[in-house]
Amino acid sequence: TLLTDFGTKEHYVASMKGVILSINPQCILIDITHQVNPHDIQEGAFILANTYSYFPKGTIHLSVVDPGVGGGRRAILLVTQNYFFVGPDNGLFTLIAQREKVKQVVVLTKRKYFLPKVSMTFHGRDIFAPVAAHLSLGIKPNVFGYEIGSLEELEFGKPIIKERKLLGEILHIDTFGNLVSNIDEEKLFRFIQSRPIVIRAGREAIHGLKKGYWEGKKGELIALLGSGGFLEVSVREGNAQKMLGVKRGDTIKIQVSG
Amino acid sequence: TLLTDFGTKEHYVASMKGVILSINPQCILIDITHQVNPHDIQEGAFILANTYSYFPKGTIHLSVVDPGVGGGRRAILLVTQNYFFVGPDNGLFTLIAQREKVKQVVVLTKRKYFLPKVSMTFHGRDIFAPVAAHLSLGIKPNVFGYEIGSLEELEFGKPIIKERKLLGEILHIDTFGNLVSNIDEEKLFRFIQSRPIVIRAGREAIHGLKKGYWEGKKGELIALLGSGGFLEVSVREGNAQKMLGVKRGDTIKIQVSG
Amino acid sequence: TLLTDFGTKEHYVASMKGVILSINPQCILIDITHQVNPHDIQEGAFILANTYSYFPKGTIHLSVVDPGVGGGRRAILLVTQNYFFVGPDNGLFTLIAQREKVKQVVVLTKRKYFLPKVSMTFHGRDIFAPVAAHLSLGIKPNVFGYEIGSLEELEFGKPIIKERKLLGEILHIDTFGNLVSNIDEEKLFRFIQSRPIVIRAGREAIHGLKKGYWEGKKGELIALLGSGGFLEVSVREGNAQKMLGVKRGDTIKIQVSG
Repeated sequence: TLLTDFGTKEHYVASMKGVILSINPQCILIDITHQVNPHDIQEGAFILANTYSYFPKGTIHLSVVDPGVGGGRRAILLVTQNYFFVGPDNGLFTLIAQREKVKQVVVLTKRKYFLPKVSMTFHGRDIFAPVAAHLSLGIKPNVFGYEIGSLEELEFGKPIIKERKLLGEILHIDTFGNLVSNIDEEKLFRFIQSRPIVIRAGREAIHGLKKGYWEGKKGELIALLGSGGFLEVSVREGNAQKMLGVKRGDTIKIQVSG
Repeated sequence: TLLTDFGTKEHYVASMKGVILSINPQCILIDITHQVNPHDIQEGAFILANTYSYFPKGTIHLSVVDPGVGGGRRAILLVTQNYFFVGPDNGLFTLIAQREKVKQVVVLTKRKYFLPKVSMTFHGRDIFAPVAAHLSLGIKPNVFGYEIGSLEELEFGKPIIKERKLLGEILHIDTFGNLVSNIDEEKLFRFIQSRPIVIRAGREAIHGLKKGYWEGKKGELIALLGSGGFLEVSVREGNAQKMLGVKRGDTIKIQVSG
Repeated sequence: TLLTDFGTKEHYVASMKGVILSINPQCILIDITHQVNPHDIQEGAFILANTYSYFPKGTIHLSVVDPGVGGGRRAILLVTQNYFFVGPDNGLFTLIAQREKVKQVVVLTKRKYFLPKVSMTFHGRDIFAPVAAHLSLGIKPNVFGYEIGSLEELEFGKPIIKERKLLGEILHIDTFGNLVSNIDEEKLFRFIQSRPIVIRAGREAIHGLKKGYWEGKKGELIALLGSGGFLEVSVREGNAQKMLGVKRGDTIKIQVSG
């Protein structure tokens, strides 16, 4: 799979694919997305974490959101029990390391597996793509460089309980304007314990959870458990972000009502 | 093939592909589009109808524009003489049922062919993708559920003749701003019968039909028969929608001139 | 590979892929981009030139930016030492002909290799896709039509030296807002000869070249050699186009400082 912030207009993604197919013409290439907000490592990490596990075991996930390209950050191959991840060591794999059993972290140094000429600005094409392609041919992970003990991690806000309120934040806003919070199913139901609740987002209050979008009336603001297992605020056939005027990082508050 | 309104920024489409490849790693996956206007079943139906028949016989078309996901609408597999269609029964396959010989409509109920955990919000990943993948492995259609006699259909406006004018409407506006009408080749030429005509769209009048874009001068408003076989209003190297300020559903009127 | 200005919302690209797979189901299809600015042959030529060479030898590059579709322009197959190019003869392959050794230019005339019904508006689907598919099956180039000696070429501005300044222009503005000039590595360093320089773009002056984006401070305007081998003006984690308010074709000026 490929995930980048390169967009689909330019030659960038195609060049990476060309490099991969030149090394391993049998590769099956699946785009996760190339529309991560430019340089937004956190968003890339979130999208990757929501989809990587639906792919067959052994899949190589090539992920490049890399504002520090060519600078000090390391290029790595992360091996977990089920998958391989290739990309910059800048926090992009934070959520993976939290969810998967990490087996190896290898810093990519063997120039033999890079393109002959490595630019200072496009390691996706010159380093990450050829390494992923060689890996798909069966080259062993530790051949690509040297092992290290841990990887860079980003801070992802975690929900907290304060004055009998469950306080989370908006982790991601999707194409439909749905507000995906960092409050997961388990934390949510442990807090609720079958009591009636109010969810506050922006200036609005939402009473109770719906099971699905269809339970809302057209244009109604609702809260529900989204497909990624997180509390989500949504407008049936509408756009919750536009209705509430909120942005990523804003608070979502849950309290017991009455 | 895959057609959705999920956009290409999120993990949604990739998760569907991951699910499919986990079940059938040999699948060839082709995107029709993921940029159907959110919840716009009619647009999805139109785009699907314009392209499905160019694919090899036996192709499975997985189409998900599904505002009522998780609610009362049925999940179906539509079998025609040449193709398979998997998606919600909400009118998305209206034009297919009009153009193809329908052999079977199966309501998807066998949970064995769904993901183990079915969310209330993402049947594309949890129901439609795995069913399509199992189907591609050769599972027989009637194994996925029970047969029904017909499917939901949407109203698509049809052109009418009134006071010696042929009245159609704008069915679709494409990326170039071309206005695709619902007036097909046959109806058009039966009405015209070699007489000189005027086409009215917005506040403009266009005299006669062109054979192709190249017959227009740069910036000229023209009418021609588009690649889908429908009357189209277009601006050579320009944007007809912007020039005329029209929207989908607006009238296109043809009358004999002089 | 496929490169077009059709966008990814419509059925256009999918129809081309369906046609190809109907003729050769084994084809591996890679999108370069479908977001070339509508009718912008020069931009299409630039994107194609930046990526074609990263693909395996023998790759067929199907490229359709074709404002004159159906008119006088020829449909061609360009054979170079390493690749095949199929598309309209309107200048789209100008940069290819400059960089690759041209072996054959064949005008596509054999209707046997087109779709049975050729529309006046969509040769991508009706002519270019089926020809590319048949070519991938091993049909020899000269079977598709007759050979000609040369192809149409577009004017691409070349950098010049005037009053001891190196004057180039902005050839392309990418998704990140980076300004890619037409000043290539060789010309640049032959001019500089290790002297200190100032790069002028819009109303700003940039002192010296950076090696990579990481050498800039966040928000700093910098100049560097981009991944395609051309001088590029960029803002670290920002957007140079928006900062400078420039457009394609605007001048980039280099002079020796002090």
